Amino acid sequence: MSFPKQVRLVEVGPRDGLQNESSVSSGAKIQLIDLLSAAGHQYIEAGAFVSPKWVPQMADSAQVFAGIKRHHGVTYAALTPNLQGYAAAKAAGATEVAIFGAASEAFSQKNINCSVAESLQRFAPVLEAAKADGIKVRGYVSCVVGCPYQGEVTPSDVAFVAKALLDMGCYEISLGDTIGVGTPAKVNAMLDAVLAVVPKEQLAVHFHDTYGQALTNIYVALSRGIAVIDSAVAGLGGCPYAAGASGNVATEDVVYLLNGLGIAHGVDLTLLAQAGWFITRELGKQPSSKVGLALQAKCSQTS
Amino acid sequence: MSFPKQVRLVEVGPRDGLQNESSVSSGAKIQLIDLLSAAGHQYIEAGAFVSPKWVPQMADSAQVFAGIKRHHGVTYAALTPNLQGYAAAKAAGATEVAIFGAASEAFSQKNINCSVAESLQRFAPVLEAAKADGIKVRGYVSCVVGCPYQGEVTPSDVAFVAKALLDMGCYEISLGDTIGVGTPAKVNAMLDAVLAVVPKEQLAVHFHDTYGQALTNIYVALSRGIAVIDSAVAGLGGCPYAAGASGNVATEDVVYLLNGLGIAHGVDLTLLAQAGWFITRELGKQPSSKVGLALQAKCSQTS
Repeated sequence: MSFPKQVRLVEVGPRDGLQNESSVSSGAKIQLIDLLSAAGHQYIEAGAFVSPKWVPQMADSAQVFAGIKRHHGVTYAALTPNLQGYAAAKAAGATEVAIFGAASEAFSQKNINCSVAESLQRFAPVLEAAKADGIKVRGYVSCVVGCPYQGEVTPSDVAFVAKALLDMGCYEISLGDTIGVGTPAKVNAMLDAVLAVVPKEQLAVHFHDTYGQALTNIYVALSRGIAVIDSAVAGLGGCPYAAGASGNVATEDVVYLLNGLGIAHGVDLTLLAQAGWFITRELGKQPSSKVGLALQAKCSQTS
Repeated sequence: MSFPKQVRLVEVGPRDGLQNESSVSSGAKIQLIDLLSAAGHQYIEAGAFVSPKWVPQMADSAQVFAGIKRHHGVTYAALTPNLQGYAAAKAAGATEVAIFGAASEAFSQKNINCSVAESLQRFAPVLEAAKADGIKVRGYVSCVVGCPYQGEVTPSDVAFVAKALLDMGCYEISLGDTIGVGTPAKVNAMLDAVLAVVPKEQLAVHFHDTYGQALTNIYVALSRGIAVIDSAVAGLGGCPYAAGASGNVATEDVVYLLNGLGIAHGVDLTLLAQAGWFITRELGKQPSSKVGLALQAKCSQTS
């Protein structure tokens, strides 16, 4: 067990979160991102430059990037599936971009009709262009401990994709349990395989909380020395096909855990919770964050 | 790290859960308890024999005990604060009884207007009577990692109360983070102190999920070899003074974790989830269990 002294929080709420929620206005997205940077977030995934045919919720990413108040030192990242998206992200002033691969062959075939290896090759032009422009590229791996189509995912398959993204030029690999089925035993087995080929300094974890296991899995990843955690304010996200199913792990709950462990992260929990209350009001729902709910209850008690 | 191969789940939903919810009918309580034993639960805290002036939700515990279908080998326990309650529990046919002490002086003074040591002495007649009747007594310690009045609670104070309850004749001590503020660092420090004076075989953990940390804390307790876990189906409970605040850790989420770790527990997750859907329908709310919600979403997709 070698817990890091400090972690970097990657706030994916405005992108991974909101792309799976009913649509919100560009103005609300901008306000959310500004509240997150004001809360101390140093890394915010602010949008995606993807076909609006597939992800209509992200069609306004250029307006969002144009509207935010940029804080010095804060990274505003964008998901870019191809060169066209990359060019648009660059034009919008994205600080960084992200690409993605699945660890599951069945998922890759079902979703983009090609093998995992072929899917990675499609990102080569993005990595080349980004390198030429001096723009950093982050790599996501999805389905790292389970797949909605094939079920089990072999740890060595995760290690293969993680290493491939690293070798292609990604500076950091985010390991995603995108359907939230992982538990500590599977996460440890997966990390055993990945840590054998990717240094822990270049790894992040990205857990969805579908079965309530995300924070425990994050604790396991922290105990292995991983120091970058993806999360979404208010636990934004969820599955558009499954009402009530949870989304990303809530940033507030991660921050509460880190505070308890004495691990530095730079985010103010009260301001963060307020950002969560803002966006859930916009969405007309309750925060998925237990911390967000508990602090909200406390406030309404004293007010 | 020495994870147990098997754990005993103590289902506290019908008592600790429902005493903090809006009231439900005796019939619904009986049906819930029967659904829980049918799901494989071997230990169910079915009610409390306390003054109906203080806990009106438990005023019908005698009717509930009279109405349930008793499964062979299942323990149906009751909370008994005094000799009068003990006599009523015995008359109702409770298999076991439970008493409770706080690890926090401020909590004890504020709630029952006496010191922790004095409060324990008040239970002496219950333990004597139970010993004479051959009825086992379980001991709860509340506020083990934090107190709503004094804030910090010293691990040695928890160890003192745990050891005192053990010495008085309790066969098992359940360590309760009753306000759900604990994180792994505090839980480990508290367990260090308690394990020095009480064998792990006689310890249980009881975590509320107010700040979303319960499952992670359970994982920590499991890694210390503790093999008895209190939980409530559907995450019943919560704070009556704080709308939206979470209650006990949800049994469904604990079961999912244990299944993932390959730890035996004897409960069928599907039947358990159905029990959770039943009682939350009765309460007119959503399950607090993420597993319960995810399985519900899956069912509604396929139906």
